[in-house]
Amino acid sequence: MPYRIRQVTISNLTHAVYFQMGSKMKENRQILIDSLPEDKLSKSNYRLDSNEIPNPGEGEVLCKTLVISVGAGSRAGMQGSASYAGAPKTDIVMGGTGVARIEKSNSEILSPGDLVVCSTGWQDYSVHKAEGLLKVMDDIDPAHYLGALGTNGLTAYFGLTDVGDLNEGNTVLVSAAAGSVGHIVGQIAKIKGCQTIGITSTTEKCELLRSKVGYDAAVSYRSENFRGELKDACQKGVDIYFDNTGGDILGMALRRMNEHSCIICCGVVSQYDTSSPAGSPTGIPGLLVNKRIRMQGFLIFDYAEKYAAAREEMKNWIKSGIFSPINDEFHGLEQAPAAFVDLLAGGNVGTRVIRVED
Amino acid sequence: MPYRIRQVTISNLTHAVYFQMGSKMKENRQILIDSLPEDKLSKSNYRLDSNEIPNPGEGEVLCKTLVISVGAGSRAGMQGSASYAGAPKTDIVMGGTGVARIEKSNSEILSPGDLVVCSTGWQDYSVHKAEGLLKVMDDIDPAHYLGALGTNGLTAYFGLTDVGDLNEGNTVLVSAAAGSVGHIVGQIAKIKGCQTIGITSTTEKCELLRSKVGYDAAVSYRSENFRGELKDACQKGVDIYFDNTGGDILGMALRRMNEHSCIICCGVVSQYDTSSPAGSPTGIPGLLVNKRIRMQGFLIFDYAEKYAAAREEMKNWIKSGIFSPINDEFHGLEQAPAAFVDLLAGGNVGTRVIRVED
Repeated sequence: MPYRIRQVTISNLTHAVYFQMGSKMKENRQILIDSLPEDKLSKSNYRLDSNEIPNPGEGEVLCKTLVISVGAGSRAGMQGSASYAGAPKTDIVMGGTGVARIEKSNSEILSPGDLVVCSTGWQDYSVHKAEGLLKVMDDIDPAHYLGALGTNGLTAYFGLTDVGDLNEGNTVLVSAAAGSVGHIVGQIAKIKGCQTIGITSTTEKCELLRSKVGYDAAVSYRSENFRGELKDACQKGVDIYFDNTGGDILGMALRRMNEHSCIICCGVVSQYDTSSPAGSPTGIPGLLVNKRIRMQGFLIFDYAEKYAAAREEMKNWIKSGIFSPINDEFHGLEQAPAAFVDLLAGGNVGTRVIRVED
Repeated sequence: MPYRIRQVTISNLTHAVYFQMGSKMKENRQILIDSLPEDKLSKSNYRLDSNEIPNPGEGEVLCKTLVISVGAGSRAGMQGSASYAGAPKTDIVMGGTGVARIEKSNSEILSPGDLVVCSTGWQDYSVHKAEGLLKVMDDIDPAHYLGALGTNGLTAYFGLTDVGDLNEGNTVLVSAAAGSVGHIVGQIAKIKGCQTIGITSTTEKCELLRSKVGYDAAVSYRSENFRGELKDACQKGVDIYFDNTGGDILGMALRRMNEHSCIICCGVVSQYDTSSPAGSPTGIPGLLVNKRIRMQGFLIFDYAEKYAAAREEMKNWIKSGIFSPINDEFHGLEQAPAAFVDLLAGGNVGTRVIRVED
């Protein structure tokens, strides 16, 4: 893995040595929100700027961005009307989570070379209070801390193992199966000895789910015969349905559930991008009674105390080769807007990340 | 308890002695379905007939009906179109479950004087195979075997204690709270140290829920300000919602649920009497996720192996006076049609029973 060699090399440099590497490293490239999108987001809503590298104050650290992730949720903060996060602004650095390396430290908690997960934003350098930053190990591609070892992976892990209480031999159905959470759900279910069926948006993604992610079967909800294809794919019925979408897809899945089965309610993607949320699917609670179905919602932060152990287990799976979470990569900070626009158009399989420092 | 004295007396008689009690006992009065209702059921859809008392064959027993129960479910079998139970018929004895006393036995399993729960139908005498009949004790009013110690009570018991996993101090909300299941749910929740709120159809029934059943609070879903009244009654939110209705009431309850709360899906009364079932309430699965709600359906026959122990516990509650399930009584077999019509109009609180032998 070329990345790993590079990682070890860089993390052994002191920040004094590092700053002698060339003048181009001494600027802080930033991608700013230039204008708010009126309809669809485009690259032209952003502009590239350059500023001086900030200096950390007492108790603070200077972080050099290595890799950032982009998720559909970031789009909400740029809506024309004010959301609960406050009115959207222009001329600010676009927000985002990343993995960064400590360059300067005015805190005893972290040292130069340490890796942390933090709100880097779309820029080369950022300053943060050292306290509260999540320090991570450098023994694995840091991009995984934004995917399988981050919120997405933990969501898949605790949803399946705690809420779903899955058992070997179960049939597991997953919606938004190519997404940042869904593709990990499918892989963990396989590790646990289950049969997996993914629901996604296109026949191309169905093919990727089978060939690249490892799903046993895949169905496109845009297919004219979605109902029939889903039925064919779920010949033995569904024991666990990991629902990332809600809406009509939930309604279709509900009719495939076995007796005493479980629906893990993780998200409602189908309701994010519309001003008129659909009603819930018919058959609730009637089908829940007849088939004794358990339908349960969860939020990942309830499991915070168990994050470390789950990360360790998943990291071991990755190292042993049985778990291959997908980081769908763009290279170069300047590619972030294009990566985000493409993500919103449904172009990704796995976790969309941008390598800022290759 | 006058009943108890009578019961003990009768059960000590041999059937030979019993048959000498008078000629009026030697006929088998039967209530037959005279015509199928075109719209609402009325008493004129039935007629009273009289036939000879049947003789039990080998392995069979002759049962004398003591008390029968009527439930809304029996109406479905009289619908104009064929249901899964087969096309409805006329000139047959109206079906129903009752408690009966064995009068003659051609089986070693049961003896004259024994009490059993069986499909008596609306008649004085019926013949059944002895094998498979549920024999019950005569140490309590047998009507309870059609209510608290029958399917209704067991449904309330296992729904609350197993599916709901309720704890002392929980706030328990119940729909159809005056019904045969709902009124028992409220009482068991009180025994378990919970605060109880009932939803019912009228202000009169609200008053009965508080004064007679023992609910802490009650709200009518027909009230113009149902939403506000429910909110006021559930100041601390709802930990467990026992849903007997589905539909709009479920939707209202959903918005009162606490984080990590539970909705026990028991029935969908709101969907029984309509040809166009309503969609599910909005907020599923969104609210289930945000509030980490568990919504779980169940059917009572999954608990068959635990019936006996649950009956024993509930019987002890009744004898000790902390549990007072309500049998809403009519007296005399000829009153069965009136009792049923009144039930369908929503006139009952508790389990509707007809005493055939007082």
